[in-house]
Formats: sequence, structure tokens, C-alpha cells
Amino acid sequence: MKDVNIGICGLGTVGGGTWEVLQRNARLIAGRAGCNLKVARVASRRPRPDLGLGDTPFSTDIYDVIRDPSIDVVVELIGGYDEARALVLAAIAEGKHVVTANKALIAVYGNEIFNAAREKNVIVAYEAGVAGGIPVMKAIREGLAANRINWLAGIINGTGNYILTEMRAGRAFDEVLKEAQDLGYAEADPTFDVEGTDAAHKLTIMASAAFGVPLQFDRAYTEGISRLTPYDISHAEALGYRVKHLGIARSREDGIELRVHPTLVPEGNLIAKVDGVTNAILVDGDAVGQTMYHGPGAGDEATASSVIADLVDVARVVASGSDQRVPYLGFESEAVTDHQILSADEFRSAYYLRIQALDKPGVLAKIAAILSDQGINIESIMQKESELHDGHIPLILLTHTVLEKQVNKAISEIEALPEVEDQVVRIRAENFL
Amino acid sequence: MKDVNIGICGLGTVGGGTWEVLQRNARLIAGRAGCNLKVARVASRRPRPDLGLGDTPFSTDIYDVIRDPSIDVVVELIGGYDEARALVLAAIAEGKHVVTANKALIAVYGNEIFNAAREKNVIVAYEAGVAGGIPVMKAIREGLAANRINWLAGIINGTGNYILTEMRAGRAFDEVLKEAQDLGYAEADPTFDVEGTDAAHKLTIMASAAFGVPLQFDRAYTEGISRLTPYDISHAEALGYRVKHLGIARSREDGIELRVHPTLVPEGNLIAKVDGVTNAILVDGDAVGQTMYHGPGAGDEATASSVIADLVDVARVVASGSDQRVPYLGFESEAVTDHQILSADEFRSAYYLRIQALDKPGVLAKIAAILSDQGINIESIMQKESELHDGHIPLILLTHTVLEKQVNKAISEIEALPEVEDQVVRIRAENFL
Ligand SMILES: NC(=O)c1ccc[n+]([C@@H]2O[C@H](COP(=O)([O-])OP(=O)(O)OC[C@H]3O[C@@H](n4cnc5c(N)ncnc54)[C@H](OP(=O)(O)O)[C@@H]3O)[C@@H](O)[C@H]2O)c1
Ligand SMILES: NC(=O)c1ccc[n+]([C@@H]2O[C@H](COP(=O)([O-])OP(=O)(O)OC[C@H]3O[C@@H](n4cnc5c(N)ncnc54)[C@H](OP(=O)(O)O)[C@@H]3O)[C@@H](O)[C@H]2O)c1
Repeated sequence: MKDVNIGICGLGTVGGGTWEVLQRNARLIAGRAGCNLKVARVASRRPRPDLGLGDTPFSTDIYDVIRDPSIDVVVELIGGYDEARALVLAAIAEGKHVVTANKALIAVYGNEIFNAAREKNVIVAYEAGVAGGIPVMKAIREGLAANRINWLAGIINGTGNYILTEMRAGRAFDEVLKEAQDLGYAEADPTFDVEGTDAAHKLTIMASAAFGVPLQFDRAYTEGISRLTPYDISHAEALGYRVKHLGIARSREDGIELRVHPTLVPEGNLIAKVDGVTNAILVDGDAVGQTMYHGPGAGDEATASSVIADLVDVARVVASGSDQRVPYLGFESEAVTDHQILSADEFRSAYYLRIQALDKPGVLAKIAAILSDQGINIESIMQKESELHDGHIPLILLTHTVLEKQVNKAISEIEALPEVEDQVVRIRAENFL
Repeated sequence: MKDVNIGICGLGTVGGGTWEVLQRNARLIAGRAGCNLKVARVASRRPRPDLGLGDTPFSTDIYDVIRDPSIDVVVELIGGYDEARALVLAAIAEGKHVVTANKALIAVYGNEIFNAAREKNVIVAYEAGVAGGIPVMKAIREGLAANRINWLAGIINGTGNYILTEMRAGRAFDEVLKEAQDLGYAEADPTFDVEGTDAAHKLTIMASAAFGVPLQFDRAYTEGISRLTPYDISHAEALGYRVKHLGIARSREDGIELRVHPTLVPEGNLIAKVDGVTNAILVDGDAVGQTMYHGPGAGDEATASSVIADLVDVARVVASGSDQRVPYLGFESEAVTDHQILSADEFRSAYYLRIQALDKPGVLAKIAAILSDQGINIESIMQKESELHDGHIPLILLTHTVLEKQVNKAISEIEALPEVEDQVVRIRAENFL
């Protein structure tokens, strides 16, 4: 049986997990791949004596892996932007295939990297970067290849979903975030998780493969969960919704919506029931309808599972010497279109609005008139006399689907009313129809 | 761009859907595949003027497709066993690749078919046969290739799940079955659906790809849902469980469990929340943990989605002239082991037992003694004084996990007690740990 030589750069969480699983399941993986996935060299800033690398050459210089002519595939697991970009481009320049778990790298530098790889006819695979252990890129790029994909929506940041799940019990954002950090879910600097940057990286990648457009991370709209309150979460629940931090990509005639934000989801939808640190992605295709993919979005061995799935795919190409390729983003480069990414003003969504208004006659009529002037229909309305405070009571509205700029216009007019205090709380809602 | 020539045999539900989607999304699919998937010939017993076949050669003799030397891939969508087997073997003998949606064929004749295909170095792909539009075979064969798969469990017959969902409202099996037939979900002869044969076909295929064993449909244990009552369903719910008709495959040291039967599932598990005609498959791997795949298990275009995903995979091989293959059942033939399939006596499961016992002192003690003698621990117990009937009341027990033969022994001893009337109702329960 042929050996395919693998070089791992970065022996942290995912690198360590990849090493472990490749050792433990070596025979089984070879039985599937039809060749041996041999780790021929590893490099990381610090040694990992706990891993028992044995005879495998180790160095602290990751470029030793690139320079080793025996290496067929470079696994980039150092993370970050610039160093990873340089490393991956150097690997490609040497004619080596690349497997990475780095969604930031692919979302931001993917177009450049794929162009370089196409020139050299090498593979760059990144399943592990999107939703950890869930083989969702394979589903989008291959399993759903027959479909015009209409939209996809996902819980794609486990930390954020954990925080939202805990906030359902009335706990405040800051308190739960602290706990998530203590449990090791959130990064020490958690902004990537809670502000939606990490989710936007993954969403950008999925959207490109779903719709056949170049990666455009800088055009993704991103809103975090830090300003959500248990108060609004529980009122959304009273209306029959759960609040989830979703990445949503939708293809429309006039462009593509690419957005990450807290979202009301009908409680009957399976994705509303996904709690804790797990991820789930719902994909709607014109032929298949809705399919959902669910599982661990992070973790050493869960992420390694996807790294190794990519390695098996690449190893089959290396071992058979074949020219057969699945295109980087699921579409041949000639088939990629530049369908534009829409600005937030152009989003179509339903909206949850909470307005603090004076409890006196005529106020509701004024608000209703403003909404109606903007062509906004109201789906349901909830007023809580019991929550009267300083003469103001909360008025909670759920709108039908409407253009976001109309909602924003209505909100500024409502906020300008003398009877209204504070800012209007606005949370988007989706019915997935 | 190269043409890859496809011949479709059987223009029924799935054949028609495949034709439609290939026409509608032709450009998009070519953009993904890197070649044109050209339907160069179709054959079916009766013409389908509604499809608008245009210039595409049509004949009533399916062997015209095999004889056409221009055809690269034969799509078998006639269904059934013997004719389909003969057709597929003839296609292989002509050196043509095969795509099929026929799970009965693969589960029963797959070993023979794959051997013939291996000799001729042609692909036989069957994603559409398992869980319709859900790309679960791709997940098992490729996406989870790093994992030692411990077990998988699935709702893999939409009709059965629809019936069980409706029975939760207290409706009787026969009534709901009639409705499912009227709605077109169930076959006119519904035994394949409700007796679990169809689910066992799919389970057999998934288990072989998960564990690397030959297909052994005749060794699968199959129990249907026709004897379930709304009474037991509601009592299971009172204990915190939902009843689902599951296919379960588990790999153990001493063999493989391969079984289809009604199953109590904890209501907190996502799979318990899968209602109606959708399918869902939960897969547990040693590296990734649990992932779940959810979506439509049948339907013309949903099934076509998987047929075409297979066609794209095959077309890439044809167009690149490559020798690269994913093994038929996910493992190279040398890596397939003959780990035995266990008999029902050897299953390990928890059990829901309902016993109709005389309401007098000492009866419970006798039953408890019988269970304890067999080493069976009780997880929970429920007795309904309010349901006293002819002096008998139902005693409902949930056991810990135990060998099935011990439970069966206990049941026959309990049934022999003079204080017990009727047969003991036994339903397996799983906690997916
Ligand atoms: N963790 C997850 O669950 C997960 C899930 C999905 C995707 N990912 C992605 O996987 C990648 C790796 O994540 P991780 O969690 O494994 O990170 P990590 O634990 O920080 O591991 C990174 C490793 O690379 C080493 N390293 C970084 N730069 C280096 C350099 N220039 N030269 C040599 N060694 C270098 C680090 O060494 P030092 O620690 O000594 O600096 C560390 O050992 C990231 O792109 C991440 O986004 C992670
Ligand atoms: N329907 C689904 O949702 C679904 C989902 C997953 C998998 N599948 C599988 O897909 C396959 C096809 O199912 P289907 O629902 O499409 O069945 P179907 O509607 O009955 O279609 C079968 C077609 O093949 C024709 N046919 C059968 N034997 C033939 C022969 N010897 N020569 C010429 N034509 C022949 C039939 O013609 P006549 O009607 O004139 O006999 C019919 O047009 C089956 O294996 C099924 O298990 C179906």
C-alpha cells in the first residue's frame, strides 16, 4: 500500500487532535483511503512531548515542512492571518496540496489562495474550518450539487449558542460569557465569537460554495449578541420564537444577503431546538428542499475528524496520480458569477420591535400609522400593562417580511415621538419559508 | 466542455424528477461538475409525454440503454429486485458506470454487484437509495472517514414516522395508515414501510459502510410498528420518551447489532423531535462524537437530488479519465472484515415493559424478584390505580440496559404468573450514550 506523506504545521488543539486520531485509527483510515496517511514531519513553536511523536521528525520552524521534498500535503493548523497566508502560499508554490482548519484565512484570503492553487493544480481543502466536525462543506459542494441553493442558515459559533441557551434561564450576557470562558468554550478575547466575526468567516465560505460567487468577507453584515437581554429573549419566547445567533445567506434575483445577527426562529423549527455548544446548518435547495446538518462545531478530535476527511480525499488524488478535482468553492472558476452582496438596507426580513411608550390613549395609533405609512404589516402585538414603569409600558410588535430600510425609517420616526422613551429594540425574525 | 452521456432506465417518480432537475439546472450542474451531464437516452415501459423529452431518444426496452455505446453512465430507476439486478449487471458487463436509487437491490444483491463492478473498474453509486435527498452515504463514506463509527441510528422510513407522529394524538394505527395511503405517502402494499423491510434495507447499507462489513440484509432484525398502540406511546411520553421507528446499527467487540424496531428515545434528544415524513440519521464516531443528518427521505426531486450528486461524482471520473475511486462501501475490499451480525438474543438495550397484573399485595414483589433474578435493574416504574380494569392494573417498567435474552426469560416467567393476564408489552429503549 502506498504512503502519502503528510506534514503538520501547528501542534495546538487541532494539530494535537489530528495527530492522535491519525495514530489511533491508522489502519482503519488506510482501509478507507486505500493508502497510508503517514505523518512524515511535524512543526510547531513548542514541542509536545505528551503526544509521543516517536521517530517523526519535529522542528520549530514550520518552513521545514515546506522544504521537505517528501511531503505531499501540508496541514496548516497554526491559525491567524498573515503567517498562515504566507505558509499556505509557500506550500502551494512548492506544488504541495494544503489542508487547513483556518476559516479566517479562507474567508479573507481564499480568492488569492485558490487562484495560486489553481495555477499549480494543487488542492486546498478546508472542511474543518466550517462547523468543525460536521461535513457540511462536503454536503454543499458535492452532496447538493444538483440544487440551486436558495438560502442557508446556521448556528455556526458554539460559544455564542451556549451563551444564548443559558440566557433563556434569565441570566445576563456578561455572567454567562464569564462562565463560557471558565469552561474553555470562549476565547480569552471573545469578540470573534460574540460579535459574530467567526460566524461571518464561516458564512462567507458556505455562501460562496452554495451560490458560486467569490469570497467577500468584507461585505458580510455582522451583528453580535452582546446587546441582547434576557428580557427580549423571554418576550420572543412568549410569541412562539427562540432567539438564535444565525448566519444567514440568501440568494435573490437582485443580489445576495450575507448576514450574521441574533434572529427569532419559530420554536417548531428544528434549528430552534439546537442548544448549547453544538452547531447546525439548514440548507434549502430547489430540488431537495430543506436538509439540516448538526454536530460539534469545535473541539480537538471533532475538528481533526474533518481535517482527516480532507486528507483522505487528497490522499486518493495523490495515490492515484489523478487530475480529478472538486472545484475549490464547488464551482469551476468560469462558472463563478459576481452576483453582488446586498447592503443591510436591502435585507428582507420580519422584525421584532420593542418600544417603550407612554401608557396613554392615542400612542398606539400614532405608532401604527407610522408603520402603515412605511408599508409594514403587523403580525402580532403584545402590550404588558403589568410592566408599567414611570408611566411607560413596553409595546412588542412582530412585523411581516419587509425591506430593512423601511423598518429603519419607521424606527427613527417612532423614536422621535415625544411619547416614546429609549431606543427601539430591533431583532430580525425568520420563518424559513 | 466535455459531455458525459447518461442513460436513464425507468421514468417513474424518481426518473421523472431526475430528468426535470437535470434540465432545469443544467448550466448550474455543469458549472459544478466541469462537464455537461447530457441525458443521451431514456427508456421506460410507457412514454412520458409530460416530460418534454424533445430529441432525446426514448425506447420501451431498457436494454437499448445498455446497448448504446455512447452511454457512459446507466441510471437504474426501475426498482424491484430481479429485473434491476439483471439490468445493473448487464450495464457493468458493458463497462458502464451505474447510479441507482434502489436500496432493495443494493441491500440484497450489493455484494455480487460490487464484485462485478470491481472487476470492470466501474462505479456503482447509490446515495439516493438511503434517506432520499439527505447526503448521508457521502457523510459516512467520506465525511467521517477518520472515525471508528460506534453506532448509528436513524428514522429512515418517512411513512412509518408519519404514522407514529399522528399516533401521538391518540389515533389508531389502522386509521393513520389509511390516511397515509390516501396522501400518497405509503405504498398500496404498505408492508415494506410499516414492517420495517425498507428501513432494514437502508440500515444494512449504512452499517456496511460504517463498519466495513459485507452487506448482510438477511441477518438484520426487523420489527414493524403495526402492533404499537397509542396507549403505550402516551405512557412512554409520561416517562419522558418518544416512540420512534428506528434503524440501529451498533458495533461491539463481539459483533454487530443490526436492528429495526419501535424504540423509546429520550425526548431531549434531537432525533425524538423529528416529526412527520422527514428522515434523520444520528451517527456516533470516536473522533467527531455525534453528528446528525436531517431532511426529506423521499419525493421525486429530493431523491433526484441524490441521484444527480452521484452523477456529478461519476462524471468527474469519466471526464478526467481518472482511476480515483471511493470504495463501494467506503472500505477497500481487503479492509472489509467479517465481523458477525448478532442475533436478537444478544442485543443490549433498555426495555419498556407493560404488564397487566392483579391489583393485590405481593404481585409487584413477585415481578421484581423475577427481574432481579435475571440481573435486570429497574430505571423507573409507573402504576396506574386509575386504570383498574377487571381487577387488573397496568404496571409499566423501564429497565436499565441488559441483554435481550435475559429480558425475554423474565417476560416468560412473568407471563406465567397466575396474577398476570395478557402478554407483556415489550418496547426497546435507547439513551444514545
Ligand atoms: N480549536 C478548535 O476547536 C477549532 C475548530 C475549528 C477550527 N479551528 C481552527 O484551527 C486552527 C488551529 O486552532 P487551534 O485551536 O488548534 O489553535 P492553537 O491551539 O493555538 O494551536 C496553534 C498551534 O500552532 C503553533 N503556532 C502558531 N504559529 C506558529 C508559528 N509561526 N510557528 C510555529 N508554530 C506556530 C502554536 O504554538 P504556540 O502556542 O506555542 O504559539 C500552537 O501550538 C485555527 O485556524 C482555528 O481557527 C479550531
Ligand atoms: N419514490 C421515491 O420517493 C423514492 C425514494 C428513494 C428511492 N426510491 C427508489 O427509486 C426506484 C424507483 O422508484 P419510483 O418511485 O420512481 O418508482 P416508479 O414510480 O414505479 O417508477 C419506476 C418506473 O420504471 C418503469 N419500469 C419498471 N420496470 C421496467 C422495465 N422492466 N422496463 C421498462 N420500464 C420499467 C415503470 O414503468 P411502469 O410504471 O409502466 O411499470 C416506471 O415508470 C426504486 O428502487 C425506489 O425504491 C424511490
